[in-house]
Amino acid sequence: MTRMLVLTEPDLREIVRLDASAVACVEEAFAALATKPVVMPPILRLDIVEHRGEVDVKTAYVPGLDGFAIKVSPGFFDNPKIGLPSLNGLMILFSTRTGLVEALLLDNGYLTDVRTAAAGAVAAKHLSRPDSQEAAILGAGIQARLQLEALTLVRPIRRARIWARDFAKAESAARDLATSLGIAVEAVRDPQGACAAADIVVTTTPAEQPILKAEWLRPGQHVTAMGSDSEHKNEIDPAALTRVRYVADSVAQTRRLGELHHAIRAGAIDGTRSFPELGQVIAGQAPGREGPEDITLCDLTGTGVQDTAIATLAHARARDAGAGQSIDTQKATGDRL
Amino acid sequence: MTRMLVLTEPDLREIVRLDASAVACVEEAFAALATKPVVMPPILRLDIVEHRGEVDVKTAYVPGLDGFAIKVSPGFFDNPKIGLPSLNGLMILFSTRTGLVEALLLDNGYLTDVRTAAAGAVAAKHLSRPDSQEAAILGAGIQARLQLEALTLVRPIRRARIWARDFAKAESAARDLATSLGIAVEAVRDPQGACAAADIVVTTTPAEQPILKAEWLRPGQHVTAMGSDSEHKNEIDPAALTRVRYVADSVAQTRRLGELHHAIRAGAIDGTRSFPELGQVIAGQAPGREGPEDITLCDLTGTGVQDTAIATLAHARARDAGAGQSIDTQKATGDRL
Repeated sequence: MTRMLVLTEPDLREIVRLDASAVACVEEAFAALATKPVVMPPILRLDIVEHRGEVDVKTAYVPGLDGFAIKVSPGFFDNPKIGLPSLNGLMILFSTRTGLVEALLLDNGYLTDVRTAAAGAVAAKHLSRPDSQEAAILGAGIQARLQLEALTLVRPIRRARIWARDFAKAESAARDLATSLGIAVEAVRDPQGACAAADIVVTTTPAEQPILKAEWLRPGQHVTAMGSDSEHKNEIDPAALTRVRYVADSVAQTRRLGELHHAIRAGAIDGTRSFPELGQVIAGQAPGREGPEDITLCDLTGTGVQDTAIATLAHARARDAGAGQSIDTQKATGDRL
Repeated sequence: MTRMLVLTEPDLREIVRLDASAVACVEEAFAALATKPVVMPPILRLDIVEHRGEVDVKTAYVPGLDGFAIKVSPGFFDNPKIGLPSLNGLMILFSTRTGLVEALLLDNGYLTDVRTAAAGAVAAKHLSRPDSQEAAILGAGIQARLQLEALTLVRPIRRARIWARDFAKAESAARDLATSLGIAVEAVRDPQGACAAADIVVTTTPAEQPILKAEWLRPGQHVTAMGSDSEHKNEIDPAALTRVRYVADSVAQTRRLGELHHAIRAGAIDGTRSFPELGQVIAGQAPGREGPEDITLCDLTGTGVQDTAIATLAHARARDAGAGQSIDTQKATGDRL
């Protein structure tokens, strides 16, 4: 008998939230990347240029976890013209012992949102000054909101400034976040000013030209750059990378996709230079921040270990809660799933 | 609203069969590979060595088709010890315009079986002598059965000999096929004798050492080698490749995974030599068989275009038949899918 659990987006929103458990599971997954024989193949990428579409498939096997996820993330950028979201997707959780499908997580990208924001929390927890109180968020999309929320889980954030190309969007995000998080949040028209005042800066835009200049950085700051998840995206001035302690989620990926890729191409960074990964910092194998005056930057491109971690958490929660519906793939749907 | 159609294995067995339509759709997909700007990324491969598991993810965008499939195929080779099949899997069909999931094809590998056998029919149709009557099948698994059935769809096969390491399995397959196909089928203990008498030889084993020797080949034969779908598998004597007109499903893949890979490694074939692909032969861009004395060999490793083709066919059939069950991913499963 081949049964699999089906969980829809509302099911998953009910049982998985951006909270301490989500942050902990992503933190453990990054640590595993440094300490265990994790298998994380390169991202499979399919481009459908004629419809402005791209699809990423990510996966990772993390020894010690019962399951591994395969995540499919389509992004079709003409969708908003016909009233559909650009981003989408689902995860499939397989048993690591049998390869059988355990669960279909039909999340429409929700779990990706959570695990991406959780990575921002993990980066801030291990790289920012513990007394960080002021945040600057460049960008006003879903991740801008979640990244600020994530920071409040790990640092005593009291004030945030949000900048976006579209000021109205920044205002709307600021209003919502002030209410939901109970801290001072304001929209600003000046990204430089926002960054100057910040202990932690998060860039979360689809920018293809740098929006954060090297000269804006000041001692003690931490930057999480999480917008760049494909070759053409670039949020951080290449020169900035020469001024910071640089940490990658996966150096193999950031050399290809992240801010590191652009800094190497611009000649600001030697392409053969090695850099620590977030998992190594968590595991104590590499230094992160060594003093209050360091400037740290974490380059997040999104990794398969995060997907496996959050999918495993979702599955465990679903079993505990009796959530979802079971499908027997060896029965015809007419006989009831 | 985000709705997707769910089809289980029995649903799919009901609407998709190994027949002329399945062969035609796979034939068109191969032709597209030669004539259209198909996008077919390299296979994503995840190995879970400690559980003897491997997972392949294949995909292809074929311009002109409404959907593209992403197929996940796990193979976990200790499963039979606990009463589970080694092979498994599912396909996800996405809209090429929006990237939204159109259908989940929970086929447990059935559609892969069909599209793989259909490729054997396509290879025989374009490379074997039209008067081919005798077949030899090396192997006695599911594909051995389906490959012989596939040959009968395109050639006037009257007699087949089946060889397998396990003679009892060959006997069982021969008995079943004689009944289902209504032709003479016998199990044999001597693969050389079976090949000597054959117009078409199909190798469909998981062999890691060649089972078909170069000296067994005789003028006029066609060989379809379809067992090798990963680096360590090898069914054909490397020297055989110097005696045949070699055609690949995808040269990029057979250089890495197929019989070509082993022939190059053994030094029998120059690694820089170019070879025609099946799609080019179908489209008339490259010669296949040029005379009755040619020996042809088609190296099939399994391609994403076949998956996209069969998934698209399954979806169209399901819509016509009103098969499957629709899930709204934006509703909780408790509210009925």
